[in-house]
This record gives sequence, C-alpha cells and structure tokens, in this order.
Amino acid sequence: MEYETPQFFRVMQYASAAERDVVDMVSGSPDWDPPESIRTGLAEYAQANASEFQYPPSVGLDALREEIAARRGLQRKRVMITNGAGEANHLAMTEGLATFSGSRILLVDPVYPYYAGRASMLAAEVDYVAADDAGYVDPEAVRERASEATSVIVINSPNNPLGVTYGRKRKRELAGIAEEHDALLVCDEVYDHFDYSGRFESALAIDSPNVVVTNAFSKSLAITGWRVGYAVFPDPAEQGDLLSNARTRHMLTNVTCSRPPQAAVLYALSNTSPTYYERTRKLLRERIEQFTTALDRAGADYTKPEGGFYVMARFPGFPGTFENVEQLIDEAGVAGMPGEAFGDARADWFRFALVTSRVEAAVERLAAFFE
Amino acid sequence: MEYETPQFFRVMQYASAAERDVVDMVSGSPDWDPPESIRTGLAEYAQANASEFQYPPSVGLDALREEIAARRGLQRKRVMITNGAGEANHLAMTEGLATFSGSRILLVDPVYPYYAGRASMLAAEVDYVAADDAGYVDPEAVRERASEATSVIVINSPNNPLGVTYGRKRKRELAGIAEEHDALLVCDEVYDHFDYSGRFESALAIDSPNVVVTNAFSKSLAITGWRVGYAVFPDPAEQGDLLSNARTRHMLTNVTCSRPPQAAVLYALSNTSPTYYERTRKLLRERIEQFTTALDRAGADYTKPEGGFYVMARFPGFPGTFENVEQLIDEAGVAGMPGEAFGDARADWFRFALVTSRVEAAVERLAAFFE
Repeated sequence: MEYETPQFFRVMQYASAAERDVVDMVSGSPDWDPPESIRTGLAEYAQANASEFQYPPSVGLDALREEIAARRGLQRKRVMITNGAGEANHLAMTEGLATFSGSRILLVDPVYPYYAGRASMLAAEVDYVAADDAGYVDPEAVRERASEATSVIVINSPNNPLGVTYGRKRKRELAGIAEEHDALLVCDEVYDHFDYSGRFESALAIDSPNVVVTNAFSKSLAITGWRVGYAVFPDPAEQGDLLSNARTRHMLTNVTCSRPPQAAVLYALSNTSPTYYERTRKLLRERIEQFTTALDRAGADYTKPEGGFYVMARFPGFPGTFENVEQLIDEAGVAGMPGEAFGDARADWFRFALVTSRVEAAVERLAAFFE
Repeated sequence: MEYETPQFFRVMQYASAAERDVVDMVSGSPDWDPPESIRTGLAEYAQANASEFQYPPSVGLDALREEIAARRGLQRKRVMITNGAGEANHLAMTEGLATFSGSRILLVDPVYPYYAGRASMLAAEVDYVAADDAGYVDPEAVRERASEATSVIVINSPNNPLGVTYGRKRKRELAGIAEEHDALLVCDEVYDHFDYSGRFESALAIDSPNVVVTNAFSKSLAITGWRVGYAVFPDPAEQGDLLSNARTRHMLTNVTCSRPPQAAVLYALSNTSPTYYERTRKLLRERIEQFTTALDRAGADYTKPEGGFYVMARFPGFPGTFENVEQLIDEAGVAGMPGEAFGDARADWFRFALVTSRVEAAVERLAAFFE
C-alpha cells in the first residue's frame, strides 16, 4: 500500500463523478453544526484592533495555551498550538525519531494512513502490530514487536478507523514499553469528545516523560478546516530537547499558526455549553445503532464503535478493495473507504464514516445490495 | 551565527522588558491598518454554511487558487496555498534540495534568518554570496560561487533586510545559473507591493522550469498573523516531481491550511481598491525620507530602500552587535535588529523596521544619541 498520498481524495473524486446519487461516508468531516460560539468568536475577532492581526507567538496565543493548560491541569509551557492534529503528530513523530534512540516507528494495523505516510516521508522503517479481533492493540503484541530500534510508537484512541477506546491500563502499559526502549509514545486523542464507553481517559493522566499527547478542535467543534490543534509535550525539565526541537521545527516550517481561528476557538472554549457535546454524542450514538442494525441484517462482521465516528465492516464474499468500493458507489450508491487503504490486517473490510444525515438511506441501500 | 532560532523574539523581549519607553523597530509586523475588506470577508465567512467550515482541498481553496492564477496569468495547477510565505519557502527549499542535483544551498549575505535556519534544519551546507556595496547581489559573484553541488538558490526582492529591488535582467541571469547547475531558484516576493522604484517585476515573467516564486498576503494586506501564502511552481509538465513532492509534504505536514483566512483573503482580493496599496506605499515613502534624513545627520552609512520596509544603517564606531542593540534600547529608546543576526557581510550594521508611527521620535532619539 502506497501511503504517501492518502487515498481519501481518490475515493471522494470517484464518488462525486458518479452518475447516480451517492451517500458520502468517506471523509472525516462532520456534517453537524459547529457551536454558535465559534461563529461569534470569529466575527468578534474580525473587529479586533489591527495589532491583533499580526504574528502571534510562534507556539500560539498565550491565552489559548493558558486556557488549554488550565483545563488539562498542565503547565502552559508544555502546550504548543499546531496546524491541527496533523501538524502536532508530524512534530511529535519527526522529533521523536530525532530525539529518542532507534530509527523505527511502530504503528497499529489498521492504521490511520497519515501516520504511515509520514513515516515514509521520514524514511523510517515501520513495524506494524495487528489489532486483535475485538479491535484493540494488545500491549503484549507490542512488547514482542518493539526493540531497541523502536523510536516512536503511535496510537489513536478513540480509534480511527476501528472505533475502539483504549483504557488507562492499556495506555500505561504502552507508555512503559516506550520507556523501556527509550522511545516516544504519541497518543492522538482527537476523538476524545466522542467516547460512548465512558472509559476514555487522556494519556496525560499517565505522567510519563515518554508520552506526547496530540489533539485538535477540528472534530469536537466541527471545524476540520480551521486547523487549530495542539501537542502536549513532557515536562521540559525531563525531556527538554524534544520540546525545544519541536518548537524550532514548527517555527522554521510554519513560522506560526493562523491567528483568527485561534482567537475564535479561545472564545468558543468559554462559551460552549456541555450540552453541545452531549447532543453530538447522542446523534452519533443513534447513527451507530441504525448502521450496525443494518450490518446485522446484511450478515456483516463489524466492530461496534465505542468511540469516534467510523465503523469498520466486512461483507461475506465482498472484500474491501478499491474495486469493490467503486462497485458499491456505482451499484449501491454508498461511498466508504477500502480497508486496504488502512493496511493489511483488515484489508478485506470497509470503513464507513457516520458523517451524513442519510445514514438511513445508506442502510437501506446496503441491505438491498447485499440481499 | 546560530540561525536555528531566529533572534527577533530575543530582541523584542529585551525591548519590552526595558524600563524606559522604546520605539519598536524590530519586527516585520505592519502597524498600519488592513483594508476594511479583510474584516468584512472574515465576518461573512463566520456566517457561512457549516460545510464551508470543513477541510478545504489540501492545496487550498479552488477559488482562491483560481483568483491568484488569473491575476498572475498562470494555470491554477501551478499555485499551492501555504501557511504564509514561510511554509512556501520551506516547501520550495526542502523539495528543491530533494529534487535537483547537488546538496548545497546558496544564499545572499545579509540573509533573512529563516532561510539560513531552514538550511540548517535540512542539514544542507550553505554558500554565501555577499551583497555588493549598493546592496545588490551580483550574478557574476553567484556564478563564481555556484557549482554542480548547488541545489537551491534563494533570493528575496524587494529585499529584507537591505531594501533593494532586483530588476528583471538580474533575476533572468540568476535563473540561468540555476538552469546551468540543475538547481532551483526560489524567489521570495512577499514585499512585491512595497516597491518604490517602479522596477519590480515578478520572476514569474522569466518562465523558467527552474524557478519557484513564493509570496503571501501577510504584508500587502497587513495580516502577518493570518498565514495565507502561496507558492507558484514550474509547469508540472516540465518539473512534475517538484510540485507533486511539495504537495505530499504539505499534506503530511499540515494536511491543509486554515480556511477562514483563505476565504477572507479571497473576498479582500476582489474588494480592495488600488488606493489602499498606494496609501501604504506613500506612508512608507514618507517614513523612509524621515528616517534616512536623520541617518544623514547622524553620519551613518545606509542603503536607501527602493522596496520593502527595512533600512540597514551603520554608525561610525558603533557596530551592530547584540550588545549595542541593547545599549541603543536602554540609552536611546530605539530597538532595531543587530546586523550580525543577518550574517557576516553587514555584521556591523543595524536593521530598522519602519513599522511604527513613531519614526519621528526614533529619528530624534538616534540623532541625540549619536551627536
């Protein structure tokens, strides 16, 4: 599988060129509304003093870093604002590789393709650990696969594409493996607001000098195009080079991140009711129920999501290849992602994103197609 | 000189910690107003359909790329939206080094520190060509210094820190040298709206497969913190790998750039009168006159800017070291940048940014200090 160019656009283009109506379950872009506060925050910023239109500090607006740090119970100096979770993961993986011993990256299969693409851009060899049948990564399997050559381990919980949520014990064990091998554990928590299990706990609770946590407001505030993310680095007293090298790379790559969305997110953080997040979770829980009920009817295997907004499913005799994805678009009018875009372990599965109000239509179309 | 962390913040911090009033002539942040249209564009976007808050294409909004391409007489496919000119230069330098033969980067001294820092991050050896006494880079000197090992040449016109504007002939010669050595000429034109000589012409007019032009709206619209820039790559029919590798790197680093400022810039491009740019140029021309008149009185050498908004000056017996910059802050109440932050060629000079309405106060203070 070629990861250098993630394949989402390829499928989206095929779907939008189709001659029939297609339910788009490809992208990770929410179809629900952002909170009104994010609009207000941006509109207020548009009237700010002109000096507020100029370079913010390279690591992000002080007040936004302060707000995030206060909410997470951290020191502000550990928080760096990034261009979405994408740049946060990029900095953590790149500087983890440069700072920790070893030269290999350990990823879970199925994998979020950007992690694999980035490893390839960094010319790092990758070791894959297949998720178990329930969709979790087994720390014992990671322990077997990890070695002195392991420099970075990346996990994502709640997980894309599998929808599982790792508990604290699992993350603590993975951090321990990173510590044993002088490696960095990168925990991407961008779906933290989409946990239906009640089991999610941030890896920040682990308090290890070998853990970086990455996150963004892209999904929680339904603003994937605004690019406000952050990385939380270990205490620089324990891992000073990692933070300082990431700051330098960020500065020399992007100078700083865009200020208007930072100001709007800062406003929204203090002006969004918890019911906004609850409502979104409720909506997604309903979609999960609808969709998995239909999968039962179609005789599919699936991992029922306890977090995130993706469902992986396998249909008997119809593996999740690009070819079959195209057939599903043309003949059923439903667009998903091919499992093979996420690695070998679930190459014969499909991934469906529940980011459409037409889950019901998709359900009926899939049932009819597989009947 | 250590370029990995540009020194602007160091001087700004010293100045803001000073116990006296200081005229800040350090940063490149405009103190004049952005056009009203950029505020309107952002406020309108804040009310857009929620689907417009999601991921734009990785290379930027189609309509913005189209608008830039139309204004520059280009095909849209050559234009990539970047996180300011910073990321545009980063992509051009990084992929130039990877795509063209050789492994060395050629820079002009005095140098914009980010170019040098980036070369260091890329572990590329740097060859410096000193600007001549008038502040220009002599193509013959570049020809002497360039070799088969040269992979990337970076120029900046109108120039920061020297304020010179290179004419078309000089750029054509530099592009020719790049062509001879299978190297890439990166032309950073972020100050293109600040040309007082009437001589500026974009390197796009050169039509060479060995030229990338970088730019941004940071200075022209007085929004350095918004991070909307772009790179124009050679026709992919002639240099396909360069564009495609830069796209991949951009995607794996940033996924895409922030959408709100892209939408606002798109609006502003069609709703800003030419008089806005003329007014800004007039303001800066007046500041240049004021400031250089004072430099004459102080007996300083200087390069009178024909573009940009910086003045380099040398005071007899008072070289532009960090130490003297601090003395000037403490004793004269004027903060500039030390020449040594820009390399060896003008290490004993200072750089002053004309981004303050208090140029007159600065003038009086400098005159008094040097009397």
